[in-house]
Amino acid sequence: MKDVLNNEKLNILNHSCAHLLAHAVKKLYPDAKFWVGPVIEEGFYYDIDLGDKSLTEEDLSQIEKEMKKISKSNKLIKRIELSKEEALEMFKDDIYKIDLIQRMDENDNVISAYKQEDFIDLCRGPHVESTKELKYFKLLKVSGAYWKGDAKNKMLQRIYGICFSNQGDLDSHLKALEEAKSCDHRKICKDLDIFMSHELVGSGLPLWLPNGAFIFHELEEYIKKKEYDLGYEHVYTPCLATSNLYKISGHWDHYREDMFPLMERDGEEFVLRPMNCPHHMLIYKNELHSYKDLPIRIGELAHDFRFESSGAVCGIERVRTFCQNDAHLFVRPDQIEDEFHRVVDLILDVYKDFNITPLSFRLSLRDPENKEKYFPDDEMWEKAESTIRKVLDDIDIDYIEAKGEAAFYGPKLDVQIKTAVGHELSLSTCQLDFLLPERFELNYIDSDGSKKRPVVIHRAILGSIDRFIAYLVEVTKGAFPLWLSPKQINIIPVNNQYHLEYANKIKDMLNEKGFRVSVDSRDEKVSYKMRECAMSKIPYTLILGDKEKEEEIISYRHRSNDETISLNIDEFIKKLNKEIKDKLIN
Amino acid sequence: MKDVLNNEKLNILNHSCAHLLAHAVKKLYPDAKFWVGPVIEEGFYYDIDLGDKSLTEEDLSQIEKEMKKISKSNKLIKRIELSKEEALEMFKDDIYKIDLIQRMDENDNVISAYKQEDFIDLCRGPHVESTKELKYFKLLKVSGAYWKGDAKNKMLQRIYGICFSNQGDLDSHLKALEEAKSCDHRKICKDLDIFMSHELVGSGLPLWLPNGAFIFHELEEYIKKKEYDLGYEHVYTPCLATSNLYKISGHWDHYREDMFPLMERDGEEFVLRPMNCPHHMLIYKNELHSYKDLPIRIGELAHDFRFESSGAVCGIERVRTFCQNDAHLFVRPDQIEDEFHRVVDLILDVYKDFNITPLSFRLSLRDPENKEKYFPDDEMWEKAESTIRKVLDDIDIDYIEAKGEAAFYGPKLDVQIKTAVGHELSLSTCQLDFLLPERFELNYIDSDGSKKRPVVIHRAILGSIDRFIAYLVEVTKGAFPLWLSPKQINIIPVNNQYHLEYANKIKDMLNEKGFRVSVDSRDEKVSYKMRECAMSKIPYTLILGDKEKEEEIISYRHRSNDETISLNIDEFIKKLNKEIKDKLIN
Repeated sequence: MKDVLNNEKLNILNHSCAHLLAHAVKKLYPDAKFWVGPVIEEGFYYDIDLGDKSLTEEDLSQIEKEMKKISKSNKLIKRIELSKEEALEMFKDDIYKIDLIQRMDENDNVISAYKQEDFIDLCRGPHVESTKELKYFKLLKVSGAYWKGDAKNKMLQRIYGICFSNQGDLDSHLKALEEAKSCDHRKICKDLDIFMSHELVGSGLPLWLPNGAFIFHELEEYIKKKEYDLGYEHVYTPCLATSNLYKISGHWDHYREDMFPLMERDGEEFVLRPMNCPHHMLIYKNELHSYKDLPIRIGELAHDFRFESSGAVCGIERVRTFCQNDAHLFVRPDQIEDEFHRVVDLILDVYKDFNITPLSFRLSLRDPENKEKYFPDDEMWEKAESTIRKVLDDIDIDYIEAKGEAAFYGPKLDVQIKTAVGHELSLSTCQLDFLLPERFELNYIDSDGSKKRPVVIHRAILGSIDRFIAYLVEVTKGAFPLWLSPKQINIIPVNNQYHLEYANKIKDMLNEKGFRVSVDSRDEKVSYKMRECAMSKIPYTLILGDKEKEEEIISYRHRSNDETISLNIDEFIKKLNKEIKDKLIN
Repeated sequence: MKDVLNNEKLNILNHSCAHLLAHAVKKLYPDAKFWVGPVIEEGFYYDIDLGDKSLTEEDLSQIEKEMKKISKSNKLIKRIELSKEEALEMFKDDIYKIDLIQRMDENDNVISAYKQEDFIDLCRGPHVESTKELKYFKLLKVSGAYWKGDAKNKMLQRIYGICFSNQGDLDSHLKALEEAKSCDHRKICKDLDIFMSHELVGSGLPLWLPNGAFIFHELEEYIKKKEYDLGYEHVYTPCLATSNLYKISGHWDHYREDMFPLMERDGEEFVLRPMNCPHHMLIYKNELHSYKDLPIRIGELAHDFRFESSGAVCGIERVRTFCQNDAHLFVRPDQIEDEFHRVVDLILDVYKDFNITPLSFRLSLRDPENKEKYFPDDEMWEKAESTIRKVLDDIDIDYIEAKGEAAFYGPKLDVQIKTAVGHELSLSTCQLDFLLPERFELNYIDSDGSKKRPVVIHRAILGSIDRFIAYLVEVTKGAFPLWLSPKQINIIPVNNQYHLEYANKIKDMLNEKGFRVSVDSRDEKVSYKMRECAMSKIPYTLILGDKEKEEEIISYRHRSNDETISLNIDEFIKKLNKEIKDKLIN
């Protein structure tokens, strides 16, 4: 999709179109008052005070019609320049404009406004010359928006729209929007019974239905298996702790705003954890460690909690409780390179399984000009940064260096990917931490008998499982690979009377081999059942009739096409097993 | 172990011995003041005010010596009877005794005390006749105890002891205590790295270490598989909700004291859930259901939270957050029998796998004399109760009927088992609930098109996974069956130089087949490594030397005995697989 904000021509068109919108609204709602109408990446919007009126879809059509009328009537658009005093006088009955004018820069001697017919509005401009240039626009939606974004202020009506210079561009933009809507994970998840929400549970707290819970669990098992094979040990720790734990870790001072409120009772203070690092530090500290024991890799599918604002939460993409695919690697300084390498290898390995092409690798480094902003250990920083560079060069990965973007506690690598709707997403991360080992006074006994501090590597591969599923749902439109599909095969007997027994026999055989199979023996037409299968994205539909029964074969359709293929059952099982082993995406 | 409280002779001995203890303490600590010294199942204790003094083990020995002296000196024990006034006069300097006397029943005209030498203490009696009868006693431990159990009061010293009539009984009791200590799950779990605790996380909030997390996860998978095969669907729901959810369910009114405190922010109120039933009610309600869809079985390994007092929590047996093996079955009234039957079958099936013999089945029924205490639906109650009886009779299960012990919402069946240390434990439960479907207005469409209320069956098979592991640890003393053992096989090459390669080859072969294997190639003696294996309860230790390498076989020892057995690798794998399949306990 086009970025309106950064395209000069589109920027002017959309600016002008916002005025056209306001002009039309003023004609239809003479009492309307206008706040601001900026251009954004996705077009423009205008915040309008319509008293208690909430605009409907129907109202938007009316407004659009009025805009077309003004457009056709070919009004000239004139620039007017005013002094601050003149501006204040001109808009003296409009509290919103007064507010705007009073906040304008003292050095702005000239305030500009644009006038078309009798409608005047403040604007820097430039604008198009006549309303007839604004032909190819569309109002997209309306929502409530607090004045100045403050919930204590009045709720205004925010109308979104977009304008192009020709019908073709508008059409293809609207088509792309429709397309994006169709892969919105919330819609697909509803269709496929992945999760539900309920106001009694609360916003940002989805309930995973059986299909979703299944996929969730498979992903957990998938990544745990990968990690076990690489020498990780998995733990399971409580999702809350005393506030003292976070006072030591530093979260209390630096992250409290994002945490759930404290629970106090009988002199004890508990809080839901925003991250599970502190728990893992305690696990490391539970035993004495020799230099020979390192690296120690502690993994957990950890439940963490962050108090996102109820406006920010979205489906399973942005939630208030989520499951981190987290691990903490406790390493000696001389092991950083090797261990970092393994993490990047794991990331690439997992991406291959899910057919993910990274958009970019972003290496966040210290700003050497501002050393006081970072953990004070020059040598450690320099060595760590060059080590990470070396790892990336060795694997031959292109990466972006972001100077000054490292956290206080150490440099990090983030892997960005692109979602199906084109958003950028930071999926995997691998971060060095020199600070937590200090705060928790972690040690190991080195070969010379002296106590040394290990370095901690925080890493997440799938990120949060919740958000990863949102990503997968959008990119696959719900057609999960066979190994992840809650139901893999649905069997439809052509005629229940004659073919149900054979259908059940095939089902038992497939179940026996570990496949997830159902038989649809409802009294419905075969074509109806097949359509349902396709809608619910079940990978294979078996249609079993006379021919299949007699020849002891199966005939299947894959959800990706309309072809019917007949196979004997052993061949079919072999095919399925290969598809699962190769984690095919289709 | 003997129950002192309910054995008349032991009761008298222990009562008398409590006075002997107090007498000795008074000799050693003349300022000591005495609160109460009751007989309990496990002997007796005495709560004593010793000012700021905290007694040590060493002090207990001294007191015991003093008791022996008094015993040997053969003091006669005399009963004295006093009026209330006389008693108040006699103990006028003792605030504790005054408090006791003043709280005595007005109808108690006579207050009795017992006197030995110059020591007098209040007691109903009867007592033995002379201190020489108190020969076979032992002081067991000392702990702090608030006066009247109230944390706002002074902390007294509580000394525990026990007394028998002969040395043999005392010896066997002390041996049994030692035995019980050795199977205390906290000790075994520490030895085997099952879990740890930390004050920064908080009491009742154990952290599961890799071994424990593994067992936890295996048990989850085990029970989920059983449930899937019976048509359960598993969901995964957030462990908190708005307080409104619990206002509807009734927990807010009836269970709030056991819940964690409210979290309030930005006008929203959240609370950690004590039970997950309400979440499952919402999941049922998320769709329309036909009578043909029922029963619907919603299972979850659900994380729940209860604010146990910090004194009551114990290891992983009694915790503040735990994982329930929970499910809710939504059934038509005509399906209660069948569904209840399936639940009892599942309980028996699972018990067979873990070699559990139920102690008793306890059927809690309504008190028909007090109908107003129960959900008002006579017909439903009568039918449900007779249905459960029929199920138990059909399966031929002996059960105890507990009239008046049903919950308000319906009758229930509890299965009691005995732990390794002899405690009774309510493990599994199956409860009918007529109330929650009302509160959440659950419906299904019956065959005639009318709306009907389903009945809910709450059931838990393993109870909480946490507590179940505590049970298993104690009963197996940490020697988990092969399928549940975090590490199944440890391979010791006799000589690293000559046999390590073969050891690694065998390891790879076993790994390939899915076994959890390690090779111990440390520079330690074979005998030392074998001792370590035995201590960590690893089921199989393979010792591989020249003979094994040449003949391509393995030699193993099982943790249960000292026999060394040689087998070829295929036979060994076959043996292991059979042991896993049969879930052998050894």
